[in-house]
Amino acid sequence: MRINVSKDILLKALQQVLKAVPANQQIPILAGVHIQALTNELVVTTCNSSMTIQYRIPGEDTSLTVQRIGEVVVPARYFCEIIRKSDAGMITLEVDRSLRLTISSEHTQIRLCGMDAVDYPAIHPAENHAVLKLAVNNQLLKASILQVAGAASLSEHRPVLTGVSFQYRNHRLQLTATNGIRLASRTIDVEHDAEIERHIIVPGRNLVEAVKIMDGEDRTTEVEVTNRHVRFTANHIMVQSALIEGEYPSLHHVIPHTFISEITIGTAPLLKAVERTTVLASESIIRLETTADRLRLLSQTAEIGDIEDEVSILEKNGEDFTISLNGKYVADILHGTSSEFVRLRFTGKMSPMVIHPKNDLSSTFFLITPVRTAK
Amino acid sequence: MRINVSKDILLKALQQVLKAVPANQQIPILAGVHIQALTNELVVTTCNSSMTIQYRIPGEDTSLTVQRIGEVVVPARYFCEIIRKSDAGMITLEVDRSLRLTISSEHTQIRLCGMDAVDYPAIHPAENHAVLKLAVNNQLLKASILQVAGAASLSEHRPVLTGVSFQYRNHRLQLTATNGIRLASRTIDVEHDAEIERHIIVPGRNLVEAVKIMDGEDRTTEVEVTNRHVRFTANHIMVQSALIEGEYPSLHHVIPHTFISEITIGTAPLLKAVERTTVLASESIIRLETTADRLRLLSQTAEIGDIEDEVSILEKNGEDFTISLNGKYVADILHGTSSEFVRLRFTGKMSPMVIHPKNDLSSTFFLITPVRTAK
Repeated sequence: MRINVSKDILLKALQQVLKAVPANQQIPILAGVHIQALTNELVVTTCNSSMTIQYRIPGEDTSLTVQRIGEVVVPARYFCEIIRKSDAGMITLEVDRSLRLTISSEHTQIRLCGMDAVDYPAIHPAENHAVLKLAVNNQLLKASILQVAGAASLSEHRPVLTGVSFQYRNHRLQLTATNGIRLASRTIDVEHDAEIERHIIVPGRNLVEAVKIMDGEDRTTEVEVTNRHVRFTANHIMVQSALIEGEYPSLHHVIPHTFISEITIGTAPLLKAVERTTVLASESIIRLETTADRLRLLSQTAEIGDIEDEVSILEKNGEDFTISLNGKYVADILHGTSSEFVRLRFTGKMSPMVIHPKNDLSSTFFLITPVRTAK
Repeated sequence: MRINVSKDILLKALQQVLKAVPANQQIPILAGVHIQALTNELVVTTCNSSMTIQYRIPGEDTSLTVQRIGEVVVPARYFCEIIRKSDAGMITLEVDRSLRLTISSEHTQIRLCGMDAVDYPAIHPAENHAVLKLAVNNQLLKASILQVAGAASLSEHRPVLTGVSFQYRNHRLQLTATNGIRLASRTIDVEHDAEIERHIIVPGRNLVEAVKIMDGEDRTTEVEVTNRHVRFTANHIMVQSALIEGEYPSLHHVIPHTFISEITIGTAPLLKAVERTTVLASESIIRLETTADRLRLLSQTAEIGDIEDEVSILEKNGEDFTISLNGKYVADILHGTSSEFVRLRFTGKMSPMVIHPKNDLSSTFFLITPVRTAK
């Protein structure tokens, strides 16, 4: 292998794929990055037991010239750090017979001990055994994942709850995550020519990583599902994640379908009031109380102090209510909401509160189970 | 106490003084911030066992109105967080007889349990017992401290070495820090009307904190030394630090006064080459070798790889040399150097290398003790 590649483009590729390399990987080859020069393309790949990231640099312009094809695996963090510290515009990478990679530019010569690429985990092409293949708008998918994934559980106590459920049915893809106390769900329309149903659970952390490195541009992401993996491909980047096995809890009976009262309120003023109130909230518990035209927020921490805040209600239907909730969960939901107003639906003192972005009442909702308090 | 104060100014004051409050302060009153409304001024103070920070907000303009003088101590982190989360332009602070502080703005009312200010550690005015009083240009002092303090030891094994030595003699103030392997020293001229000598050791960490919160503007910082403290006052901010007791090592015989050879080299290209070479340097040890007109930098990590870099030498006197140094220490020195060129003085294979900024040969220097290597 011998190539000439632009420092900036190589660095970008390495920084993206580095996210699949754990900081303390003990198995040398998995601490490595697989570099493969094809006829007119450089493919950079990393993987761990749950995720694979691949970045393809096309040889179309002056940023990459492949002089000799070949492949090698080198220590990912060292390689990335070396390229980052380089001040050359173009870098030459050359692998010799003893698998040594020489990285050279004008005044600098670096030799890294390489490992044989045949020992590197293979990525099987998904095309042959994909059971579902969707094309989704990049930004829509990104926004939906970010809105939902935060509600997933962080504890490994029930592994399925650390995942995000992807339920595809009737040309609609519903993403849902819950930790048992809060739940977030968003449904998006996806064109597909066949009548097909599929339900998978994808690790929430992998999704958040995937979304971070996906281009933010208005393109299409390919979503391919096999029996064991889901693969997201957008532009130069492919992220493949293992699936979580198990039965995702049925949500039908959890989600309230009727409500006692509802209010519409400005998202930004409510978020600020929730954040303020949560500062003095013991165990993050804040109380919400409606009055004629205002929502009062209250909290206290013993021996420190208490806080009372107020936000104007824009619309109210039904009776006044009082409910105690985890303020951090409410703030998380409001942070992820681009809608100017939200609707809060009260379904009973001990039933979940339902929050909708006002511009998206039918497809996006969040549930929070109230906290039992002495009052 | 009752005042009306601008949110932004109060927040700025609190963020500055918060640095003296340890994250896990167990003694409630020391986790507090002392707020004192004087006739036409608000004084905000925090302290820990080694440092006091005080910020004075003048009542000159519309940003502060004192309606009733008084004082109280409230939990510093809660108070700062509450003010940070406020979206009001002006905030009213009022203390009642039971020492409760009410923080109010349009829609928000917060009550914090206060503590009695008489229990708060007093700050004694330095004027009465200052043994040395200097006025130093703010930026010069800041730059000097930042250049020197990084060389101080981080280990409490020899407490005096965690400090920066301030040696005042013959109208010159010499700042020195060393961890036994590296040493940094800078001497600045300071006007003073009396012939006085004084030597103190100031905790390096306190100095770095002090410097961070000092205004960056071109003003004068007052430095007052008592038998137990040093106090820096600039504009609205006063930082007082305890001194480290003990005997600072005599540096006279450590500092080489003759050299075998010296080279002049560009600071930026050398820094980049040092940083690159250090990536592959086992235990951060890099080797420097002069050739006719170039400085070669070499390093290696077993089973990973090695690197060779080169930087052009601008001027050379004396013989060629080879020396092994800690690359991180060299990078630290070069990072803090604003001079375009540096001079490296070789004083022997096992003697410290001396580095000077080229524009400041007489007053600033750094020493690094070489590393013994197999080669």
